[in-house]
Amino acid sequence: MPKAGWSERQAVELLKKLFAEPRSALVGIGDDAAVIPRSDAPLVLTIDACVEHVHFERRWLALADIGWRATQAAVSDLAAMGARPLAALCNVALPKAFGRSDLAALAQGQAAAARELGCPLVGGNLTRASELSLTTAVVGSARAPLLRSGAKAGDELWCIGELGLAAAGFAWLKSGRKPKGPARRCVDAWRRPRALLAAGRALKDRARACCDVSDGLVRDAAHLAEASRVRIVIEERALLAALSPELGETARLLGAPALDFVLRGGEDYALLCSGPADRRPRRARRIGRVQRGRGVVIEQPSGRQIAASGGFDHLR
Amino acid sequence: MPKAGWSERQAVELLKKLFAEPRSALVGIGDDAAVIPRSDAPLVLTIDACVEHVHFERRWLALADIGWRATQAAVSDLAAMGARPLAALCNVALPKAFGRSDLAALAQGQAAAARELGCPLVGGNLTRASELSLTTAVVGSARAPLLRSGAKAGDELWCIGELGLAAAGFAWLKSGRKPKGPARRCVDAWRRPRALLAAGRALKDRARACCDVSDGLVRDAAHLAEASRVRIVIEERALLAALSPELGETARLLGAPALDFVLRGGEDYALLCSGPADRRPRRARRIGRVQRGRGVVIEQPSGRQIAASGGFDHLR
Repeated sequence: MPKAGWSERQAVELLKKLFAEPRSALVGIGDDAAVIPRSDAPLVLTIDACVEHVHFERRWLALADIGWRATQAAVSDLAAMGARPLAALCNVALPKAFGRSDLAALAQGQAAAARELGCPLVGGNLTRASELSLTTAVVGSARAPLLRSGAKAGDELWCIGELGLAAAGFAWLKSGRKPKGPARRCVDAWRRPRALLAAGRALKDRARACCDVSDGLVRDAAHLAEASRVRIVIEERALLAALSPELGETARLLGAPALDFVLRGGEDYALLCSGPADRRPRRARRIGRVQRGRGVVIEQPSGRQIAASGGFDHLR
Repeated sequence: MPKAGWSERQAVELLKKLFAEPRSALVGIGDDAAVIPRSDAPLVLTIDACVEHVHFERRWLALADIGWRATQAAVSDLAAMGARPLAALCNVALPKAFGRSDLAALAQGQAAAARELGCPLVGGNLTRASELSLTTAVVGSARAPLLRSGAKAGDELWCIGELGLAAAGFAWLKSGRKPKGPARRCVDAWRRPRALLAAGRALKDRARACCDVSDGLVRDAAHLAEASRVRIVIEERALLAALSPELGETARLLGAPALDFVLRGGEDYALLCSGPADRRPRRARRIGRVQRGRGVVIEQPSGRQIAASGGFDHLR
């Protein structure tokens, strides 16, 4: 078997089998977060890692940005479950040439994000490693956690938060340009994402399914479609209408289609959800629909549907 | 500032200041685990990492051993708090040349440990990295968590579980010998440690303070002494009487003093605790006493006391 030829999905299936313990968890491996029963309210648990050279390069981000992003990214999984964070833990792996002032800068970014999110960092662990990485575990609670698996045929597909800005901002930096004009907003979205906790909680009694958009819209829509055993139709016209003008302008200056950043980008930490049309929250924008079937398709303005693929596989 | 010249302790002090949020946590950074209030029972939270080339080498351990150890080591922090584990999460960072069967072997070790500990692995995350690492977060609960900070002058110093075996077992493997005779037990202790959950819970109403012994007895005793603002006297005669005969024999064959493995070894996952003499649990062995003052000393059979130092600093 070629070592690089197995996907994250295959690995998750393998782990699901090995760790299957249906009685111990309300929701186990495969959703944004796990859910375990408690007498007061179910606990919602998640863990997420940011690894240098895999998820970030220090050339594009200040250490405080790296700490901020790692914290927001982990808490975003709780936002997608409609949960309230209780506390976070972080393991920081430090390479040899990483001094006290470096750690202080990194931790200041974490602490700022934790404060904004109302999710105190109550503990952690430090270790040596060959590359910098932050692994953040978050514990939260939700009376009725919102899962990936509840989407129903007939639902609208909604998006809350910005799509594509972060990927466009990263592309802008990689092109060697200074962040200015419309690109500044894209670069900010990439450097300083925000977990949409309040929006996630406001989905209660409105959305039937939700996940966060961290690996690109197509890939995360596929997670939702697979967990819910439905077909998701992303309507290109509706999607384009939901995008920020800054994305269009930045994409134009980069000479790339805005939709590329949206469909196959990532690190948006927007919420992708589905629910009945008459329950759509004010902040949610309709970008498609849920049908019977499987998979994700993109419906072009002409009505032609094309199978969608792409996005970030954590093991490829 | 020489980058290698700062210690774990300095880093922890720095983080304590940055993350200080006294209202949000009953116990924050600096104990075996953090404690946050809940209406039913406080939650006890910990995170721990095992990194290749830092904490283990694959040459000495099967992948299943690595998965087992990572899980037991993380849960051991909960044992030291007298807590009951509810669930664990694990981030596994995989180097490029790591196939599906490798992941299956690693996860089988984790799953076996999780089953034995009654601590289901309910979720996790997979990422690429340049070296193999497992970061395990554990959530548990305890009505009255046992802290490092409760030791009082006049307490006895107790140990539960085996000291020194694991370090001797590792030294035996490094010497290139096959595990046999008394060394087999040492090697097993190193490869397959066990978090002492039941013993930790049995300390309720008996011990005043506890931590697990993972960085060597001297270093962990120093953690207890510092948190409790007391002086810990390790009595060499009592300590020697508490050691397993297999340790003595293995040390003799290796030509090294048994006490070296005990005082400055590590990865024992024994419990070090203090409490009043009349409440000593049956499984606990007395290895010293707690006095007013600061620091850790070793009292030799002659009565002479020497200041103790050494053990594993995670950043040096």
